[in-house]
Amino acid sequence: MLLVVTSLMPGWAPHSAPSYGPAHHQRGGRLLAQASTAFDLASYMDEKRLYTEAALDASLTSTCKETDIIVESMRYSLMAGGKRVRPMLCFAATELFGGAPEVAKPTAVALEMIHTMSLIHDDLPAMDNDDLRRGKPTNHVLYGDDVAILAGDAMLSESFAHVARETKGVPAERVVKVLNILGDSVGALGLAGGQVMDLKSEGQAEVTMETLTWIHTHKTAALLKAAVASGAVLAGASDEDVAKCEEYALKIGLAFQVADDILDIEASSEELGKTAGKDMEVDKTTYPKLLGLERSKEVAQELVDEAKAAIEEFGDAAAPLIGLADYIIARKN
Amino acid sequence: MLLVVTSLMPGWAPHSAPSYGPAHHQRGGRLLAQASTAFDLASYMDEKRLYTEAALDASLTSTCKETDIIVESMRYSLMAGGKRVRPMLCFAATELFGGAPEVAKPTAVALEMIHTMSLIHDDLPAMDNDDLRRGKPTNHVLYGDDVAILAGDAMLSESFAHVARETKGVPAERVVKVLNILGDSVGALGLAGGQVMDLKSEGQAEVTMETLTWIHTHKTAALLKAAVASGAVLAGASDEDVAKCEEYALKIGLAFQVADDILDIEASSEELGKTAGKDMEVDKTTYPKLLGLERSKEVAQELVDEAKAAIEEFGDAAAPLIGLADYIIARKN
Repeated sequence: MLLVVTSLMPGWAPHSAPSYGPAHHQRGGRLLAQASTAFDLASYMDEKRLYTEAALDASLTSTCKETDIIVESMRYSLMAGGKRVRPMLCFAATELFGGAPEVAKPTAVALEMIHTMSLIHDDLPAMDNDDLRRGKPTNHVLYGDDVAILAGDAMLSESFAHVARETKGVPAERVVKVLNILGDSVGALGLAGGQVMDLKSEGQAEVTMETLTWIHTHKTAALLKAAVASGAVLAGASDEDVAKCEEYALKIGLAFQVADDILDIEASSEELGKTAGKDMEVDKTTYPKLLGLERSKEVAQELVDEAKAAIEEFGDAAAPLIGLADYIIARKN
Repeated sequence: MLLVVTSLMPGWAPHSAPSYGPAHHQRGGRLLAQASTAFDLASYMDEKRLYTEAALDASLTSTCKETDIIVESMRYSLMAGGKRVRPMLCFAATELFGGAPEVAKPTAVALEMIHTMSLIHDDLPAMDNDDLRRGKPTNHVLYGDDVAILAGDAMLSESFAHVARETKGVPAERVVKVLNILGDSVGALGLAGGQVMDLKSEGQAEVTMETLTWIHTHKTAALLKAAVASGAVLAGASDEDVAKCEEYALKIGLAFQVADDILDIEASSEELGKTAGKDMEVDKTTYPKLLGLERSKEVAQELVDEAKAAIEEFGDAAAPLIGLADYIIARKN
């Protein structure tokens, strides 16, 4: 597979992050060393982000004055920006197996709704108690804790209704499978379970590497896994191919978290859009804390390499997923 | 249609509540006046409750030590008793159209999970701040607000995954339709939307009959409507027949709330398992407050009569739904 990933957008170019240096291109090997096919990741991400945001914008409307407040609260968080990584992964996976983006659109919307719900609930005073997200007041600051809880509940249930109601052009069996995948990704073995373990590990003297990996496999990677798996299933991928995509997503999910931990140390608050250095301040168990900063960078790169290896056989068609894997650890926020 | 509804269980007999007197049998007409077929509601409810609780018990298990806390918290609330009215309505609707209970079992479990999630979140300090439910400490009192929020989220998503994963023996199109129905019943036009309006109406001087009805149509009736509609859909009922069942459920949903408001005035705290008279104490807008106690009782009975009329044409096969409609307003807690 011969690929070039080019970047048109300043500030988030996958290979411009100095902290990762050029070394990983030699380890990562495949990506830049033997370039022949150009894939423009920046344009791809831009296009999918705009496509996703238009779909999100159309997904929630108030139908009567009684629902104005809750829908306004839901829309406030859903349209508050963000990288839209989960929808992108879903689109990339569905296109890898020949699926059309329109077919995956309701699932892409659902993935972002689920992600948004988890942010609204995580920010609550009873959880992480954050007043700001992406430089804006969090949902509960504007609408109150009660409305924020209910807006999250409504968003979560709407994500399933949206997939069930809006997905067209594929056998119903695939839609059922996607709804199963989405449901699992939030439950006890998904992001809610991961978040509970994370909360229970706070302030504990000894959090092992095994526990830390369990937390992030469920809190972060489970929804990324659901994103690629559901995209692949909608396009009719075989169980074997879905499993390869899931392996890819688990690896980039963990890499995403390792990169987050590194950014918390190396990036400025301005770059992050939130307070940098917060992990160390509260003595949170992170990959750098357990492994050191340099080894954490190596681990992040190894995880991305393993992710790319899991889907290597799909060749050039996997260029968007390959590019997104690099982006995961090269991003600056 | 000629039916007798008999009761074997003391204390909840549908026709023993003195406050409703014998008058409604003359208005309701069909039910006791011209008896020929005996339907044993008490045994029916007992059987379905036990069947539901066995299914609930099997639905949530911890698969590793990391999920012990969240699953324990979810199970605590899911297995804390209750009348299991929503599963019963689902079974009764599916059987009305010739469906087997096994086919509706995952949906019945999901309905109770959704109901339980709404109770866990409603009891939170940020919402109704209740320490006791059914005489036991509420979820957040035992597990903390953070775990209670996440247990609710996990339960809500698991309800959809459970239906998608466990429903067997019907075309996938019906499963997709059921998942759409369930999702809608929780969202902005379902119980979350109803709850937001209820919260926003608290302390307001003038809550109109129209607003009160909107609140309870969404907060209470929407999930009862989803229960009968999903049961009917699973059995392959026509859209027209599903609509009749929904009309029935909307009426009993409102009747359920009117009865709740009456019980808050007339029943003892011991009978209710929670503090009686709470509505008046906080000057909550209720049906008795807007209509007076006697007129509220008439309205409850009229709603039940209208509910029964909506499914009258189904004859003896609708006996469980007819019996449950009477039970809704005759119950003592």
